[in-house]
Amino acid sequence: MKKIAFLIFAGVISHSVLSQEFLTAEESDPQKMGWMQGFPPPANRILSAADGRFFRFPALRYSACHMRQFLPTVTVPSAENKPYSFPVELDNKIDEVSFTPVGSEHEMTFKESLAKNYTDGIIIVHQGKIVYEKYFGALTASGVHAAMSVSKTFTGTLGGLLVAEGVLDENKLASDYVPELKSSAFGDATIRQILDMTTALQYSEDYADPNAEVWTFTAAGNPLPKPKDYSGPMNYFEFLQTVAKNGAHGQVFAYKTVNTDALGWIISRVTGKSIPDLLSERIWKPLGTQFDGYYQVDGAGIAFAGGGFNCNLRDIAMFGEMIRNNGFFNEQQILPLQLIEDIRNGGSQEAFQKSTHSQLKDWSYRNMWWITHNEHGAFTARGVHGQTVYVDPKAEMVLVRFASHPVAGNAANDPYSLPAYHRVATYLMRK
Amino acid sequence: MKKIAFLIFAGVISHSVLSQEFLTAEESDPQKMGWMQGFPPPANRILSAADGRFFRFPALRYSACHMRQFLPTVTVPSAENKPYSFPVELDNKIDEVSFTPVGSEHEMTFKESLAKNYTDGIIIVHQGKIVYEKYFGALTASGVHAAMSVSKTFTGTLGGLLVAEGVLDENKLASDYVPELKSSAFGDATIRQILDMTTALQYSEDYADPNAEVWTFTAAGNPLPKPKDYSGPMNYFEFLQTVAKNGAHGQVFAYKTVNTDALGWIISRVTGKSIPDLLSERIWKPLGTQFDGYYQVDGAGIAFAGGGFNCNLRDIAMFGEMIRNNGFFNEQQILPLQLIEDIRNGGSQEAFQKSTHSQLKDWSYRNMWWITHNEHGAFTARGVHGQTVYVDPKAEMVLVRFASHPVAGNAANDPYSLPAYHRVATYLMRK
Repeated sequence: MKKIAFLIFAGVISHSVLSQEFLTAEESDPQKMGWMQGFPPPANRILSAADGRFFRFPALRYSACHMRQFLPTVTVPSAENKPYSFPVELDNKIDEVSFTPVGSEHEMTFKESLAKNYTDGIIIVHQGKIVYEKYFGALTASGVHAAMSVSKTFTGTLGGLLVAEGVLDENKLASDYVPELKSSAFGDATIRQILDMTTALQYSEDYADPNAEVWTFTAAGNPLPKPKDYSGPMNYFEFLQTVAKNGAHGQVFAYKTVNTDALGWIISRVTGKSIPDLLSERIWKPLGTQFDGYYQVDGAGIAFAGGGFNCNLRDIAMFGEMIRNNGFFNEQQILPLQLIEDIRNGGSQEAFQKSTHSQLKDWSYRNMWWITHNEHGAFTARGVHGQTVYVDPKAEMVLVRFASHPVAGNAANDPYSLPAYHRVATYLMRK
Repeated sequence: MKKIAFLIFAGVISHSVLSQEFLTAEESDPQKMGWMQGFPPPANRILSAADGRFFRFPALRYSACHMRQFLPTVTVPSAENKPYSFPVELDNKIDEVSFTPVGSEHEMTFKESLAKNYTDGIIIVHQGKIVYEKYFGALTASGVHAAMSVSKTFTGTLGGLLVAEGVLDENKLASDYVPELKSSAFGDATIRQILDMTTALQYSEDYADPNAEVWTFTAAGNPLPKPKDYSGPMNYFEFLQTVAKNGAHGQVFAYKTVNTDALGWIISRVTGKSIPDLLSERIWKPLGTQFDGYYQVDGAGIAFAGGGFNCNLRDIAMFGEMIRNNGFFNEQQILPLQLIEDIRNGGSQEAFQKSTHSQLKDWSYRNMWWITHNEHGAFTARGVHGQTVYVDPKAEMVLVRFASHPVAGNAANDPYSLPAYHRVATYLMRK
């Protein structure tokens, strides 16, 4: 019973989804499936953004590595000088580290978990060295992958940075910075409430409900030309102004993407910079990243701050390692220690326990990071279909994973992921 | 009279266009115009690919530097190791080099010609050193710009490379490699005829004629969803199969973009690689380029080989300098000497003089390069709105320019460009 409860948190996964049969990782290998391969590709292997299946499993296994081929995007330039290169000291014994998946009676090796989780790429950094690195499916070492909601963590970290620098006052209201938000639910929400997603919004992300607000949000942000009879909001910012309030802010953690896009708007308004430009300038370039990242944009050229970032795996490992190192990386203090401490300390566990994510016992949410409050003080960035940046300070470990799991909600892969991360951390600590 | 004749070659420019008044370079500065600036941009400053004006002057001045923000694209990865950096020894006296524009009685300085030509960026390399480098409008040193028909030269150079390597036989027919082209005009055209554009095609690129085949080509290649009632070809390759023959191949040079896309198909079929991948592997990475380039793609993910390349200005200067150096650059022989000699020697001047470009006296066309056959043996890659890679072997000079001239046809900027290039070359030779 606990297992089922765990698996259906967030409402993203249902009993029917769980009992559904999916192609295995091997069967759904995008190279074997032949998506967009050939000159021209066979008609039934051509994908497009206008084609509903392009971002659904199994086509997702190709598309997650090729978003630019389908959509308008804006580049996040990588470092032009001072490139960083991780020292590498691979430890193949990690493959054999075994763990017990949540709700299971049988052990599984870490290696087995990779296919189970439809992993596209995984890197483990221990004490600053890459000890594990694998690529599958359509991802290569020089490729990029959709970070999905891990994008939120980048926006939240930038927001936290501006708070630490005094550019944003966390006690001020969103409408103090963006007057256009005045009559929306964000109007009387504080920057802190938005950063920690304790706003009370009339906004459903239930994709199974055709009347859920997420569909209006998606239509507004779709960069393809709007249908002739379309009369809704034309872009993300227009949509944000329509979000209604439902309850009192500051009480309950409610994980809703639009908070991040509202934050993105606030950040751009106060800095005069787009999220891609600010991310590049303040984080991506200083890290010494090797590959340009990019954001999907809406029809007004506004980056999808809540889910549109795409980047290289080694590059995002640099980000995780910088966070683990209290903001110091590539010979410089990229983020202030004060911000990293604020993330590590976490948000309100009480607000979190009142949320639909209460199965994640003891967790909290802060600056758009998920804080486990486990005995290692681990915290993580999470995106649908299995995207992960997992920082374990006690084990001096950072694990980054890109994946294309058939089920969007992480509840489907958490049982084979969270205990595995923790076991590898424990293994590395004993070395 | 000669002046008018010169200006209206190619049928792209007409008397009415010439007498039209355009905003000056300064007045049309995209930063000042504010395209896509602000959070959100003002409604009348939002551009989109579905908006007819996005690629028309003056919006073009922004869009040419931001194609990815509007369209699906595929990356041409830059060098991962062995990056190249030009030595720089700027010579400000080049600004004052003066020349007489074709058809004019008044001298103009090189510096004055930059605004006259709506230059977005220009680099002059002399004896391997950058001696001149300027950026205007929306272009920066780390930015990219649409190469437009300079893209053809990349495809043609790759085609010539495959001929030199024996992978393609220039005397074989297109249909020997791509049987799907059998019943089209390309079916009985040789690889050489396609490389030199002496095919006889029923294909008009007259944008003023609503029945011109170029509109069907454009609709086929448009990556946006097709209208519901659309029944034409779905992508570039489907369109190419419909091109009819009109006359005998091999007689007359006829500059038509579809030749390049047919060549792109042939190249991809024989190599098993897309044009972006092949260009990256054989040229872009070996050059030691610093910035990823990219191609616009159609709805099947096929790169627009005839006009869809976008890249950085310093990077394309590396390409020009490699060609000038007989294929040797960044410590390696990137292209065989035999190919460069073949380009330099040029194509049939007789076939060229029978073309609509006969005002370009003595010129020829070879491997999708324009050969001037002037006393310096200069040859050039050309794209609409002023895109240029100009190689002057005798002066040991390479000039690359990105521009966003209001008039597409180079006839509008040639009078202020070709004599200017030649005068700068002469100046550099006398130093």
